[in-house]
Amino acid sequence: MGSSTGRLFSVTTFGESHGPAMGAIVEGCPPGIMLDLDAIQEELDRRRPGVSALSSPRKEPDQVQILSGVFEGKTTGTAIGLLIANKDADSSSYAPFSDVYRPSHADYTYDAKYGFRDWRGGGRSSARETVCRVAAGAIARQVLSTLAGVNVVGWVDQVGSVVSNSDPDEVSRQAVEASEVRCPNPDASAEMEGLIREVRGQKDTLGGVVRCVARGVPPGLGDPVFDKLEADLAKACLSLPAAKGFESGAGFSAASMRGSQHNDPFMFSDERVQTTTNHSGGIQGGISNGMDIVISVGFKPVATIFTDQQTVDNQGDARTIRPRGRHDPCVVARAVPIVEAAMALVLCDHLLRQRAIRGDEVFGS
Amino acid sequence: MGSSTGRLFSVTTFGESHGPAMGAIVEGCPPGIMLDLDAIQEELDRRRPGVSALSSPRKEPDQVQILSGVFEGKTTGTAIGLLIANKDADSSSYAPFSDVYRPSHADYTYDAKYGFRDWRGGGRSSARETVCRVAAGAIARQVLSTLAGVNVVGWVDQVGSVVSNSDPDEVSRQAVEASEVRCPNPDASAEMEGLIREVRGQKDTLGGVVRCVARGVPPGLGDPVFDKLEADLAKACLSLPAAKGFESGAGFSAASMRGSQHNDPFMFSDERVQTTTNHSGGIQGGISNGMDIVISVGFKPVATIFTDQQTVDNQGDARTIRPRGRHDPCVVARAVPIVEAAMALVLCDHLLRQRAIRGDEVFGS
Amino acid sequence: MGSSTGRLFSVTTFGESHGPAMGAIVEGCPPGIMLDLDAIQEELDRRRPGVSALSSPRKEPDQVQILSGVFEGKTTGTAIGLLIANKDADSSSYAPFSDVYRPSHADYTYDAKYGFRDWRGGGRSSARETVCRVAAGAIARQVLSTLAGVNVVGWVDQVGSVVSNSDPDEVSRQAVEASEVRCPNPDASAEMEGLIREVRGQKDTLGGVVRCVARGVPPGLGDPVFDKLEADLAKACLSLPAAKGFESGAGFSAASMRGSQHNDPFMFSDERVQTTTNHSGGIQGGISNGMDIVISVGFKPVATIFTDQQTVDNQGDARTIRPRGRHDPCVVARAVPIVEAAMALVLCDHLLRQRAIRGDEVFGS
Amino acid sequence: MGSSTGRLFSVTTFGESHGPAMGAIVEGCPPGIMLDLDAIQEELDRRRPGVSALSSPRKEPDQVQILSGVFEGKTTGTAIGLLIANKDADSSSYAPFSDVYRPSHADYTYDAKYGFRDWRGGGRSSARETVCRVAAGAIARQVLSTLAGVNVVGWVDQVGSVVSNSDPDEVSRQAVEASEVRCPNPDASAEMEGLIREVRGQKDTLGGVVRCVARGVPPGLGDPVFDKLEADLAKACLSLPAAKGFESGAGFSAASMRGSQHNDPFMFSDERVQTTTNHSGGIQGGISNGMDIVISVGFKPVATIFTDQQTVDNQGDARTIRPRGRHDPCVVARAVPIVEAAMALVLCDHLLRQRAIRGDEVFGS
Repeated sequence: MGSSTGRLFSVTTFGESHGPAMGAIVEGCPPGIMLDLDAIQEELDRRRPGVSALSSPRKEPDQVQILSGVFEGKTTGTAIGLLIANKDADSSSYAPFSDVYRPSHADYTYDAKYGFRDWRGGGRSSARETVCRVAAGAIARQVLSTLAGVNVVGWVDQVGSVVSNSDPDEVSRQAVEASEVRCPNPDASAEMEGLIREVRGQKDTLGGVVRCVARGVPPGLGDPVFDKLEADLAKACLSLPAAKGFESGAGFSAASMRGSQHNDPFMFSDERVQTTTNHSGGIQGGISNGMDIVISVGFKPVATIFTDQQTVDNQGDARTIRPRGRHDPCVVARAVPIVEAAMALVLCDHLLRQRAIRGDEVFGS
Repeated sequence: MGSSTGRLFSVTTFGESHGPAMGAIVEGCPPGIMLDLDAIQEELDRRRPGVSALSSPRKEPDQVQILSGVFEGKTTGTAIGLLIANKDADSSSYAPFSDVYRPSHADYTYDAKYGFRDWRGGGRSSARETVCRVAAGAIARQVLSTLAGVNVVGWVDQVGSVVSNSDPDEVSRQAVEASEVRCPNPDASAEMEGLIREVRGQKDTLGGVVRCVARGVPPGLGDPVFDKLEADLAKACLSLPAAKGFESGAGFSAASMRGSQHNDPFMFSDERVQTTTNHSGGIQGGISNGMDIVISVGFKPVATIFTDQQTVDNQGDARTIRPRGRHDPCVVARAVPIVEAAMALVLCDHLLRQRAIRGDEVFGS
Repeated sequence: MGSSTGRLFSVTTFGESHGPAMGAIVEGCPPGIMLDLDAIQEELDRRRPGVSALSSPRKEPDQVQILSGVFEGKTTGTAIGLLIANKDADSSSYAPFSDVYRPSHADYTYDAKYGFRDWRGGGRSSARETVCRVAAGAIARQVLSTLAGVNVVGWVDQVGSVVSNSDPDEVSRQAVEASEVRCPNPDASAEMEGLIREVRGQKDTLGGVVRCVARGVPPGLGDPVFDKLEADLAKACLSLPAAKGFESGAGFSAASMRGSQHNDPFMFSDERVQTTTNHSGGIQGGISNGMDIVISVGFKPVATIFTDQQTVDNQGDARTIRPRGRHDPCVVARAVPIVEAAMALVLCDHLLRQRAIRGDEVFGS
Repeated sequence: MGSSTGRLFSVTTFGESHGPAMGAIVEGCPPGIMLDLDAIQEELDRRRPGVSALSSPRKEPDQVQILSGVFEGKTTGTAIGLLIANKDADSSSYAPFSDVYRPSHADYTYDAKYGFRDWRGGGRSSARETVCRVAAGAIARQVLSTLAGVNVVGWVDQVGSVVSNSDPDEVSRQAVEASEVRCPNPDASAEMEGLIREVRGQKDTLGGVVRCVARGVPPGLGDPVFDKLEADLAKACLSLPAAKGFESGAGFSAASMRGSQHNDPFMFSDERVQTTTNHSGGIQGGISNGMDIVISVGFKPVATIFTDQQTVDNQGDARTIRPRGRHDPCVVARAVPIVEAAMALVLCDHLLRQRAIRGDEVFGS
């Protein structure tokens, strides 16, 4: 279980890091959407390893094949099959650890859960699975854009102790992509790059924070009680590899604010209801209010460090290991398109839910 | 949509704040569990308003009726119907705001979503719905305890700017319940109480942070990719009213740690695999590793403040409002049993999922 | 598990025959539908026992309470809580059989599944659960009628060996309700009544067939592959107590037809695509084609007969039993509103699914 | 929507008849099951076109590739990706009908649902999708066999008006496979073959009935109310292309039986509770009782006949068409492995559900 997400716009994935291929089935895509295949590939390229001096040297072309659900360029409304081959898998560096539990990896928990595991490249627990999220998310982005004019932009706001504090209102994809670490603030970006190089030299790793904003979201998305928009966004983000924290709007900082500071006064402007501030991050009572939706995701440092670590093997015997393999010293730059995809999948699902109960009323068509 | 949660141990709820009753259906409960009804009522009493000088004066006995699924004291394995009457609803203080959008409440978003709303007491968006989570969670806690010896304890770790930093290893329910604000650290507790009284005097409100630990969780709970244990916990917590942030283990602080600091070395101790530190918060690769599971939930300040606020009505006209009604100045003390319930529901669901794929193998019976 | 149905318009139920109450939560109902509560009660009255000399003498007023989800007469879009009290439960006639397996009842299978059972009145396995389907189905009917002009009419087409063969094009609710056995053909109706009285005198029971037609269904409802409209209708009908067979359109008789006989030629008439015959029963490729949807459900004879039967008890010892309690000699007349409700629930769910992917395009708004 | 089935053992599929490939993701498979890949391929070969003079000449090797979820021959417990290439698609015979609605095909309903359609080979509505069900079902069969000793055997019991009436207790796979039409009764088999050849010569087509028995099913599978075992079997079978009827046990014939004839007396034999007759078809109250589960599925005649037919095009203009393409005159022989697969998928899902609530208690391990 666990390989499916979404109630109406749903995605089911398969694939291990060192198997022949990764794949996904996207269900519930409305028919008649012109799919820009280059735009899908572009998102995969943004996630791809081996493109930056700062990321893993594994070379994967990550060329996506669309096997169904598209006819004469348009979505047919039926299941979309996606396939992405694994070309550059190298299991040899994992073989010495097939019976050992690498610290803060999923080796032990997979053994505990399933009784044994595919140890090659981390198997199903590998972050390589995110290639499917990004491909499916790229379709979701096109649906959101076509049906409702929604746009999603993410960026790196923190690497280790370097914080950018970029203003969500100001961040543009152009500025994000101009930075090798995907931080739109040039000063912070330079500092982050320097830190990554330094820590890589120490054979150590870094964590960080990715923020993401969705603009143009119509009011009314999200469901009461258990399926609040924030709840589904939190689940989508905490299901990302290495994610350990999530915030919506003011997040944890709201805990130390007074109601009089945090409340967002309403005003009527541009022919619609808006708020003068946006501490709520575009969501009130779990439902979008038409303001920008702003989220943050905190990532722990990469677990694979290249120095000696204490652990045990599957017999419980103490072992000292020094991992090998190809790993990023810091994943947050590559995590940007992944967080964007996760956010887009949730929004797209809730857009369709809202259509189910209201038809197209709320979208003015 | 939105009123159901859980895949195997599932809960579906209904009810508005000022309707005749709240209710829930708990499905998937294993048969043969002796249900301690007093323990269920005790959890409801912990959540109940009107019991502390620091909480809303609304008086609700919150007496739960079990309408099905239990026979001769034991769960039958079939659907459990729960009903909790609303006794002390008073809609009069809401009437003046039936056409106005109270800032940072769900008034506007419900209108946007549904075209109109039940404005009495916030209708479906009222935090009163959590009474159902607590009742269902109390059943989940008994299932967890009976089948796997799992125990869940939550506490208030922050109110406004007062932080307790209690050690998750040390917190006991007894210490928590000894404090009116449910903070096990007596000094911090006293300071929090003082702050709440002060802010209430200013007709303002406070937010805070609840932490929660689950002890005795067997390794192997959680599913790869989309249904990681952290993901489901994050969803459960961000679906709580006023929740704006979630952390698992080291959470956002992991973002500024190095891999060499954050990684949890494995050791073999007490005849099982353990880690020497627990920055992972008991979850690795989205699956429990047998260590304590530790989460944090950040809550924004209560939206209802008793001073003038700027807003608009449903015609878009500017209005100044000063809300009335019965509200807590700070909800976090009452949120403790709610977060515990949310956590218990997720763990119980994943316990059953794990039984589905492994039978009882992993629990040694 | 098993107490929920529907993906978008969903129903979750609870309740045992001899518990305090039955109940349901209806989720996903579009907002703004004026609910006619009398019409809901009327459907419950049609299903009610004790109203005909031909049915069980158990007297249940079956007064439905709506506890949430309706405000000022209109659905709010949030969960609708329904409660129906059990007033006339009498467990005394079941006590002698608490350790015995009544033939062709669910006594043994519930023991096998859950380890023990609530034996009072059949517990959760009692057909009394259908009261919830009828109430929820009555809401679905109003949604279908309001949003798409769909109308559902069922009738008894067979009792024992007496077959009516009524023409689905001609059957009216008025004609159905004019017959005590709900057969619109007066001759067959009289014969059926006579047969039921005769068999009741023999302390024996009868089965029969209910047919049902949905008129005005827009083309396009149903999903490819696993969720074909016929598939969901079949599931809804085979989940009814005592149901053992299902047919769509020509059903099993299609098996002995040639393609040239069975195929329905298309024509263009009344400004829409129609077929000149309707062997398909309004569904092609699992999707509605705008013609009347016609289904049949076969019911086995009531299991409770009032003569001696051989069986075993829960120790495996042979026992002879002669059941007591209040039971219908033939359930099919009361099954008519139940089959209608089952059909309405499926159609309503698929109507919302179609809105999710197409907005309101297909309904011409 | 519609491309997923199963709650715990779930299958999601994609693929159009004339696209590059068909595929499926099987989720929830317990870990550690030795998968016999040859047995999977054998089931696909049984379904394959082009192997009999009586079936479509389309030549598809239907070689299945397993892309994930299996390691060193054993299931890992994670998602199993399956891929089957389409090799012999020929869209040229469909081109003349791209704007016409072939009678009793899904051309019109897909246009009505989605606004347009992939007309090549029927697109998503093609029966070619069943290749995925058979592959996934072959895995389910191995899980059922390994965990619970369950075995599934189907056969053709009727072709056109030729009925075999084979005894479910007696049918063996060997006898079934010895017949070109998969009817274990040699006389009926010969007659069926003759009829198929005759009707093919008339450019017409035939329907028929497939029956299927599951042996060794433990008591206790199936859920109350909506997810009765019969209900899920009915849905699985009515979702098969061309299926129009479903029966469990005595089916529609039960409608004309008396309770005293239909009831199955219990006895204690071979150290377990059994029934002396099996009119219930192994299911009581929607839950398996340990006796053989027996179902029947009625199929309409193949819609593609090779004579002139009246229809309309997508402008509503009258057209006369004479279809081309490669089609079976009668599908029921090829439907046997498909019905078996459908039944196996349902049983496997319910086996895991039962483990979730009871652990392995009921299976004695």
